[in-house]
Amino acid sequence: MPTYTAPVKDMQFLLHNVLKVTASDTPGYGELDEGFTAAVLEEAGKVASEVLAPLNAVGDREGCVLENGIVRTPKGFDAAFAAMKEGGWTALDCDPEYGGQGLPYLMGTAVGEIFVSANMAFNMYQGLTHGAYSAIHTHGTDAQKAQYLPKMVSCDWTGTMNLTEPHCGTDLGLMRTKAEPQEDGSYLITGQKIFISAGEHDLAENIIHLVLAKAPGGGEGTKGISLFIVPKFLVNEDGSLGARNSLSCGKIEEKMGIHGNATCVMNYDGAKGWLLGDLHKGMRAMFTMMNEARLGVGLQGYAQAAAAYENALAYAKDRLQGRDVTGAKNPSGPADPLIVHPDIRRNLMEQKSFVEGARALTFWAAHLIDRSVRQDDAAAEGLVSLMIPVIKGFQTDKGFDMAVQAQQVFGGHGYIEEWGMSQFARDARIAMIYEGANGVQALDLVGRKLAQDGGKHVMAFFDMVKAECKAHDGDDRMKGFTEPLKLASKQLQQAGMFFMQSGMKNPNTALSGSYDFMHLMGHVCLGLMWTRMARAAYDALDGGHADRDYLEAKIATGRFYMARQLPACGMHLARIESGAETVMALPAEAF
Amino acid sequence: MPTYTAPVKDMQFLLHNVLKVTASDTPGYGELDEGFTAAVLEEAGKVASEVLAPLNAVGDREGCVLENGIVRTPKGFDAAFAAMKEGGWTALDCDPEYGGQGLPYLMGTAVGEIFVSANMAFNMYQGLTHGAYSAIHTHGTDAQKAQYLPKMVSCDWTGTMNLTEPHCGTDLGLMRTKAEPQEDGSYLITGQKIFISAGEHDLAENIIHLVLAKAPGGGEGTKGISLFIVPKFLVNEDGSLGARNSLSCGKIEEKMGIHGNATCVMNYDGAKGWLLGDLHKGMRAMFTMMNEARLGVGLQGYAQAAAAYENALAYAKDRLQGRDVTGAKNPSGPADPLIVHPDIRRNLMEQKSFVEGARALTFWAAHLIDRSVRQDDAAAEGLVSLMIPVIKGFQTDKGFDMAVQAQQVFGGHGYIEEWGMSQFARDARIAMIYEGANGVQALDLVGRKLAQDGGKHVMAFFDMVKAECKAHDGDDRMKGFTEPLKLASKQLQQAGMFFMQSGMKNPNTALSGSYDFMHLMGHVCLGLMWTRMARAAYDALDGGHADRDYLEAKIATGRFYMARQLPACGMHLARIESGAETVMALPAEAF
Repeated sequence: MPTYTAPVKDMQFLLHNVLKVTASDTPGYGELDEGFTAAVLEEAGKVASEVLAPLNAVGDREGCVLENGIVRTPKGFDAAFAAMKEGGWTALDCDPEYGGQGLPYLMGTAVGEIFVSANMAFNMYQGLTHGAYSAIHTHGTDAQKAQYLPKMVSCDWTGTMNLTEPHCGTDLGLMRTKAEPQEDGSYLITGQKIFISAGEHDLAENIIHLVLAKAPGGGEGTKGISLFIVPKFLVNEDGSLGARNSLSCGKIEEKMGIHGNATCVMNYDGAKGWLLGDLHKGMRAMFTMMNEARLGVGLQGYAQAAAAYENALAYAKDRLQGRDVTGAKNPSGPADPLIVHPDIRRNLMEQKSFVEGARALTFWAAHLIDRSVRQDDAAAEGLVSLMIPVIKGFQTDKGFDMAVQAQQVFGGHGYIEEWGMSQFARDARIAMIYEGANGVQALDLVGRKLAQDGGKHVMAFFDMVKAECKAHDGDDRMKGFTEPLKLASKQLQQAGMFFMQSGMKNPNTALSGSYDFMHLMGHVCLGLMWTRMARAAYDALDGGHADRDYLEAKIATGRFYMARQLPACGMHLARIESGAETVMALPAEAF
Repeated sequence: MPTYTAPVKDMQFLLHNVLKVTASDTPGYGELDEGFTAAVLEEAGKVASEVLAPLNAVGDREGCVLENGIVRTPKGFDAAFAAMKEGGWTALDCDPEYGGQGLPYLMGTAVGEIFVSANMAFNMYQGLTHGAYSAIHTHGTDAQKAQYLPKMVSCDWTGTMNLTEPHCGTDLGLMRTKAEPQEDGSYLITGQKIFISAGEHDLAENIIHLVLAKAPGGGEGTKGISLFIVPKFLVNEDGSLGARNSLSCGKIEEKMGIHGNATCVMNYDGAKGWLLGDLHKGMRAMFTMMNEARLGVGLQGYAQAAAAYENALAYAKDRLQGRDVTGAKNPSGPADPLIVHPDIRRNLMEQKSFVEGARALTFWAAHLIDRSVRQDDAAAEGLVSLMIPVIKGFQTDKGFDMAVQAQQVFGGHGYIEEWGMSQFARDARIAMIYEGANGVQALDLVGRKLAQDGGKHVMAFFDMVKAECKAHDGDDRMKGFTEPLKLASKQLQQAGMFFMQSGMKNPNTALSGSYDFMHLMGHVCLGLMWTRMARAAYDALDGGHADRDYLEAKIATGRFYMARQLPACGMHLARIESGAETVMALPAEAF
């Protein structure tokens, strides 16, 4: 059975040595001193290890059960959810006006990784509530905020997002769910939504559904879509619960993983709803929350890999099999531990260097979101909006791959459910799909984000990489980082140029290379992170930091990533530059 | 629910246009005329589509159940197994002396793909029996062959292979199962074996277990290991079943996939067994069967991808979502089919070009096995033994990746078990692990096969690639194949040279690059196959072959592989040439 220990040391290094939070001018960052963040992360780690992780396999095995319209979550989820609420974990980065603790989003992200690593399916109940909270917080009227937010901050009520319908996922313009305006200003919502995570369950008194639907007069396609608040139980003026709304869970899906979270078919049969934000501007309202939502999914990708890696590492140190080819390392035992074997090392180093790199990228992006929200920093907002599809697409693809590689360390035992490694892979798989399938992320990156604001943000990104490399010019120790990063960044620019030059003639050229571009950029982003982390580690070493072993391991891990993973950039560039021709050559009927 | 249609046209192209079987001097190939092979493949396809494929999801959902020592297979498996036996499918390439039909192994392989694609878990009952049949056929005495083979050829009795124990998988030298010699020449076998596929079930009258165990006097490690025949029911002189042997299934494992096949913990409590082959030469006996067994697993890898691809393609043609960016393709409908989108194409083309390339490689390897067995062709044997770890490791890694990509085409529906795409990925996952985890395949390739017989076979492989390229020098149409193949082959040679030069100083250098070498060689092998297939397709076109659409699609698919997949070779080379340093830098305790 897998165990989990939060990577507090690594998070502290990111917060204090790389991001240097207390020196930041971002409001709220000044209070994040080392003692405070350590206390928060260690306490979160304790909850994760002792409460959430032991329930991970239980949730997978038992799953959720729908009976008479009621969804029963796995045994122990209710007590764990109560513990999360009592500990104030659901309110960490929420607005103090509604009962939140007002910590930066960065801290919410760090704690989020810990909880997601320990139990992804469980954490979705709270994670989706946070998404719905953000939507209401951003777009709601004062009355709506007062009515819903305090209970959502505390997770007495949970939230959902309802977008997908049976015939439309990515293409929301095909949406059929209807909203009929009523005389009292409310709407009656009718239609079927699918894949609604936490759509029905027994962990909360009420569930606040946010539902996309078409109200009259909005025109065709996505233009006619509005966003509605549709509570499971109507809420009285005094905040008490009123009548049951006309909505129900028709079915829960049998899935490959995240069995502990109920994925519901939701039927709205003239359910009472209230407009959230502007009429016919529902898509825009959704988009403003997308950065956070997609960052959260990108986090799931590496957080599952992190948990899987931790267990693969323990197994590789423990399991005795074969001998070190350069001489026995455990001569008194029957065999050496797996970790002596170079190919096991390669596998573990791939996992470790990805997880630590992705963690750095995610924390940095969370910091940029704090800057954009708390300081109205438009450059930060532009940059993070450029990187979001990379973080979502690249990190979930690689996170899944790494969870699969962690499983591989266990040999046959990795395939047996009892050992828990299969669950990491099965759970991680969904992150590549939901919140915009990764092909859609690639499309968003290449078709939208590259050219956004005249290409300003991607140019800023390239300048930043260039400046980072230049800053370490005098330090030979940094060459193993800056040289590969320079090359990779050049390859990324070359791919971008290729799109620009050929995209005029044939838009399919850029679209055929979009997926490779997303991965190429992912490697450049992680290369940038590793360069920053190496710099911070050298600085700490030079400054006499006590934990030399940790810092030297950090540098060695980065050197592995630069030497062994950045060569993927050349491959992606070659694929991109082969253009659309071979991709589009076959007529559909010739497949 | 997925459906399955056998790729008979593609198989026929390989048999008759690429391998040109009837012109081959391999005994038995002369009879394989187009009409005959079409009849066999179409009939197999019919059984696969109508009997096996509909049971695939049933097997996954129901799994096997152990009650009072008896394993119940999923509903319908018994009738399907009876149909397979009646159709003579279990005996296809078996020795006519024991009731087989004596067809070449190549035909067994083609039919095998069809059955594995339709239902991998089900086909394992018969596949493992075939492995045990081969072991007894190769190493058994005449009496043993007469006693066991006829019933195993017909699958009235099935077979198993018992290698793994709880504390040893790859490192069989740690084995504890004991064989005590008895006065009557038999042995009493005592020990526990795990991960025994089809170890116990209700499909056959008897189960013939082949068990590795240590008999006295053999010394330490793998040297002391012998192979034993241990039947579930003892067999009387007249062939009738006698007493129940002292062996039992203690548990069946809950697994990530292949639920329809019972993976058993087998307890041998002084079970009666008979030596198969020479005393203390059990490992050698196992190794002689390894080529077939590992080819079979490499086949599972691409066969699952093939089935997944077929369904992803159908979905991509059917599901309407979004519009072609170059103009609507389905203007009268609400949206265009998924297949218009370049990134969906890229995904589908990756699947298609891998599956067809891997099929060609597997068929060619099966042909080489026929040559080595039926003609004592030592060069063929050397070549196939070199390629086996590549076929097993590369094809199962990529096969899994492609099944995951097929799942991705379905978006959220791919994650829902009802659609069946998750099962393809979950089932395909095991092929990367069993029959030697893929890291072990890489080790076998680099540590053993490259240098085998003084490096003769790998030199022969390079010469073959060179000759293939040279043969098409005059044909400009072939440049899109020969140029990338030449480059990739050069990169592979460079990697081999790097191992030779640095391996002297540090064996970890080669071992750190072994996995990348396996993948690099996999791409070169598929590049070679695509070059041959393109040549055969052009020849057929030039010769006025009627099915121009198929042949042109074949060439276009190959061009995609060469342009979009061979660039991976440069990446693998760069990783290899980065050496062992970053892989081995961290002390185990610093991870």
